Amino acid sequence: MTSTFKPINPNDVKAVTCLGAGPIGAGWAAYFLAHGYTVTSYIHSLDEEPALRLLIENAWISLKQLGLSEGASLDNLTCTNNLKEAVSTADFIQESVPENIDLKQGVYAQLGDLAPTNVVIASSTSGLSMTDIQAHCATPLRTVVGHPFNPPYLLPLVEIVKGDQTAPEAVEWLVEFYKIAGKAPLVLRKEIPGFIATRLQEAIWREALHMVDNDEATVEEIDFAITNGPGPRWALMGPCLTFHNGGGEGGMAYNLDQFGPALKLPWTRLEAPELTKSLRNKMVDGCIREASDNDYITLSRARDEGLVAIQNALKNCKLPLT
Amino acid sequence: MTSTFKPINPNDVKAVTCLGAGPIGAGWAAYFLAHGYTVTSYIHSLDEEPALRLLIENAWISLKQLGLSEGASLDNLTCTNNLKEAVSTADFIQESVPENIDLKQGVYAQLGDLAPTNVVIASSTSGLSMTDIQAHCATPLRTVVGHPFNPPYLLPLVEIVKGDQTAPEAVEWLVEFYKIAGKAPLVLRKEIPGFIATRLQEAIWREALHMVDNDEATVEEIDFAITNGPGPRWALMGPCLTFHNGGGEGGMAYNLDQFGPALKLPWTRLEAPELTKSLRNKMVDGCIREASDNDYITLSRARDEGLVAIQNALKNCKLPLT
Repeated sequence: MTSTFKPINPNDVKAVTCLGAGPIGAGWAAYFLAHGYTVTSYIHSLDEEPALRLLIENAWISLKQLGLSEGASLDNLTCTNNLKEAVSTADFIQESVPENIDLKQGVYAQLGDLAPTNVVIASSTSGLSMTDIQAHCATPLRTVVGHPFNPPYLLPLVEIVKGDQTAPEAVEWLVEFYKIAGKAPLVLRKEIPGFIATRLQEAIWREALHMVDNDEATVEEIDFAITNGPGPRWALMGPCLTFHNGGGEGGMAYNLDQFGPALKLPWTRLEAPELTKSLRNKMVDGCIREASDNDYITLSRARDEGLVAIQNALKNCKLPLT
Repeated sequence: MTSTFKPINPNDVKAVTCLGAGPIGAGWAAYFLAHGYTVTSYIHSLDEEPALRLLIENAWISLKQLGLSEGASLDNLTCTNNLKEAVSTADFIQESVPENIDLKQGVYAQLGDLAPTNVVIASSTSGLSMTDIQAHCATPLRTVVGHPFNPPYLLPLVEIVKGDQTAPEAVEWLVEFYKIAGKAPLVLRKEIPGFIATRLQEAIWREALHMVDNDEATVEEIDFAITNGPGPRWALMGPCLTFHNGGGEGGMAYNLDQFGPALKLPWTRLEAPELTKSLRNKMVDGCIREASDNDYITLSRARDEGLVAIQNALKNCKLPLT
């Protein structure tokens, strides 16, 4: 079957089809539009179009601040609820339908027949495995996980994971295409649950829940500690290079040889806490307090402004060093 | 003894004494100088003075970029190896001697007698408890942990923890003083090992070590995933508000009610991995590769430039919302 998979040069991609009308599907559509592609958004029902366009217009504010590509325009967007029409002329497909394995398998069964076999299909799934998603797809060679970080129009990371039936050429193609499109692709060495970034997020999240559960810190105090402490270092260097630098002249070697034994100290709790009603309410109430009762849109605008500011600020910084 | 503890108005602090010639002690000295204070640096031996001044001059580059206070000058620094002289006229003392309990207890025994009893003494310790540190101090009421994040001249967080003998008034005073001096103080509700930010750092660190140990990701891939993914969100919002926002209109409540059960999935490994020679070398080699063989000073300059850029960028952003 590898012989039937002849993708076009990723530099020649012009038409991108995005499946899904939620924040991820809309975020991808906005991103590709801003990078000069023609975008077709497949939506389940045409009733979803106004909400989709609102999300895209909101993303556009930030994308303009970061700089649009030549020819980029919201006019290059078409919405359709006809799947065949949506994918038949696509050069690349980014699927972001809800995280439900039955639903995804059904969509890939259809896509496998409707989308030209030389077209790579990437799934935005954050938790499902491509091996499962591609199970009922007749042309699974070109199906790959391409998991973005929210919001996909501002955070560059895309984690790439193959399924059992995925062709290595599809992975290579996707890496090259995402790079051309300005993303930061990361190919996983193994198909591990949660991939890399979400697993690391989950680790911090569990310890945060324990702290709130034990009344050692509130939601606001945890966020205050991170944003004023390690957060900016993580945005800039990540956890490993931060500790390498923190080790002074001796770097990571000094750190590990000196503080290695501290690893075994019970500084973080091991298992996830029971999500009791009380813990649930402490988390929820704390977040509402911290957001000062502002709604989702207001909070998202503030987030986007901050992320644009960080991204623009780091454009002229020397990290990663070469 | 509370009756003998009459601190001056934190607004009237003019003379700050910093103990310690390492990156933390020097970082604090630079920070207070940049905020217009007169600083005395106590160093163990006068031989350490040139290295201390180099660290302070390096910090000064960034502090100037962030904006110096009126009257701020490197000329307001005095170095001495006479502890009595260093603390007898201080309005506030920030101690950053090496993390060794015997050493700290000895220093606090001396400080307890030499420093005027109305002067608050804050310890930069990241891992020791003030209850232990103040054990042999004759005037322990005014001794408090004031743990900064590295570099202390750029990251605002200071975690404040009392010991068993610390007066509540000393904690209140220290919070007010740090705020006046432009820091972001956070008082811990309980004396927990690692405080808040370091425990959260440790959680992410353990999972990162597991990934490297299992060849699921390299050092560079982990840092790449964080800096291009959740890192900028953590710098801006912290982990809780990020998930509140990620829940869409439904916020944290939607997230927990929907995804709560996923907490029990084995997404992060529970115990810390064995720090084998092989794991140690993978971490060390990966960091050296990632730093492209650049030395500590070059890497620190790049870090400082990035942190200044992030901090300046976020000055005009609306988070936290009010």
